[in-house]
Amino acid sequence: MESTELDRRFGFRPGQVEELTGVRTRYYGDEFETAPYMGARAVSDALGRAGLSIKQIDALIAVSGTPAQLIPCTASLVLQEMGELDAGIAAFDVNATCLSFIAGLDAMAHLISAGRYHRVVLVASEAAAVILNPQHFESASLIGDGAAAIIIERAADQEPSRVTGSRLETYPRGIPSCELKGLGTTLHPNSSRKSSGDDNYFRMDGQNLFRLTYALMPAFIDRFLSESRQCPEDFDFLIPHQASGPAVRILLRRLVPAGHDEQIFLYLKDFGNVGAASIPLGIHFAIDRGKIKRGDRVLLVGTGAGLSLGAASFVY
Amino acid sequence: MESTELDRRFGFRPGQVEELTGVRTRYYGDEFETAPYMGARAVSDALGRAGLSIKQIDALIAVSGTPAQLIPCTASLVLQEMGELDAGIAAFDVNATCLSFIAGLDAMAHLISAGRYHRVVLVASEAAAVILNPQHFESASLIGDGAAAIIIERAADQEPSRVTGSRLETYPRGIPSCELKGLGTTLHPNSSRKSSGDDNYFRMDGQNLFRLTYALMPAFIDRFLSESRQCPEDFDFLIPHQASGPAVRILLRRLVPAGHDEQIFLYLKDFGNVGAASIPLGIHFAIDRGKIKRGDRVLLVGTGAGLSLGAASFVY
Repeated sequence: MESTELDRRFGFRPGQVEELTGVRTRYYGDEFETAPYMGARAVSDALGRAGLSIKQIDALIAVSGTPAQLIPCTASLVLQEMGELDAGIAAFDVNATCLSFIAGLDAMAHLISAGRYHRVVLVASEAAAVILNPQHFESASLIGDGAAAIIIERAADQEPSRVTGSRLETYPRGIPSCELKGLGTTLHPNSSRKSSGDDNYFRMDGQNLFRLTYALMPAFIDRFLSESRQCPEDFDFLIPHQASGPAVRILLRRLVPAGHDEQIFLYLKDFGNVGAASIPLGIHFAIDRGKIKRGDRVLLVGTGAGLSLGAASFVY
Repeated sequence: MESTELDRRFGFRPGQVEELTGVRTRYYGDEFETAPYMGARAVSDALGRAGLSIKQIDALIAVSGTPAQLIPCTASLVLQEMGELDAGIAAFDVNATCLSFIAGLDAMAHLISAGRYHRVVLVASEAAAVILNPQHFESASLIGDGAAAIIIERAADQEPSRVTGSRLETYPRGIPSCELKGLGTTLHPNSSRKSSGDDNYFRMDGQNLFRLTYALMPAFIDRFLSESRQCPEDFDFLIPHQASGPAVRILLRRLVPAGHDEQIFLYLKDFGNVGAASIPLGIHFAIDRGKIKRGDRVLLVGTGAGLSLGAASFVY
């Protein structure tokens, strides 16, 4: 979905949507590009690049704010899409909406470190287009579909690669500013409280979210740095959740001083905000485009529905 | 919901539903007893029993096969229900449907062991009544609503309490026998593939699930025991997922020889199968009724949609 098309939909002058959002285009998948379908493609691509087969994976963890169906979990549906009907590996989902990748990475890094698993795939997949109210400028202009998969395994003893910190904080005060009330059991379509069409659209109040996040982010970052015994200068590269272009720079000023904006990786121009896939897709592009190399120290940071703030750091 | 009422609904003779299912009664919550509402009650009760406040908890992990709404995660909604709008703790969901508690326990035990968290709450909550097709005997007679919360913290060095093993295996071949296709983005009510009423009901084919599980369970249990270096005689007490009474005994024969059925804790007579809450509710009853005491070795085992097989063991 091109921003020029959204300019027409919302009666803006050509170029205005891109100026306001920083997004030139975002992908809206068709009805057959489900979250498990895109996730399966991403896992297969990651396995292919790593020269691995699914047989060499101990666990597949899926993260998605837009799962395909209620039961079973997305991880199992991804294996089904891959044709791995007798996979026999562990498969489950982790959900902290847009920060799910950080929650999953944190848990998996510890499970691998303890020897519980040798090698896992974390796959993020968002089929978000269908939950966007086409008349709601803020979400329809910002959010897109996408998937990414990351393979994590124990580094050899002489390699520096490791997760160096992780923190999540949730403030439910922000729930009314960012939620989707339907597609669950409370407003179940067969119940007396059944949902109206609008309940099945994602609702966000970006201004209120920014206000809440702006107040919380500096102290959150301080706690993350202090807990993980790091300082802003320790990081070579920062991959934020692509929540929005200008706002992200303001929120992360504490970490990246003015004049060093090239250390903040923003790719939302071509994809928008792809939810839980945003951070792993950023990692994928950063590796693929040579922006990070082995030994670099990378910081992931962002916000998600909840309202949650999250950060994780690793040596690539 | 009493089985005698279901006898009438399905045209059975009085007592027949209980004979067939082993369930005398199961709870169907009303429309305001949402998964987050029940989960919040369970967390508050657990905190009260432990003499703790939410401020002394580092993370709240929610597990549910029947979440209230798509966004945000259930953990955040539980904190909202508790009035903890500025909680600031980590809050996310883990989903492996009925085995979610095992997946969550495994991850949390490792995170606590590594010092990442000191104390976490795992809360399971199921508002399942609304997804039951009232005309489908198998699910309507077996499944009920419920919630349970378990607080996990690092044991003192001289205490024996610890998680001694955990394993999950997923076989997507079983998906068509146990799924709910709606309440997600694929059959979104506003899309061209929108769901019909039946898509929003849980569908299960118990006979096929039993057939698949019966073939997989013995080798799964062998792998679990071998990996965790345990043998069936090591366990004092076995808490199965309450998937169904007679089938559970047959499936677990490998672990508990004939004549020792009292070691298998079945409480489904009074609650039916409460999904992800089934295992933690079993732990709660086992502790509350004095069936396990400190130092006992407990085995958790079950199956879930996916099709997943799971087991975990701990010293209480």
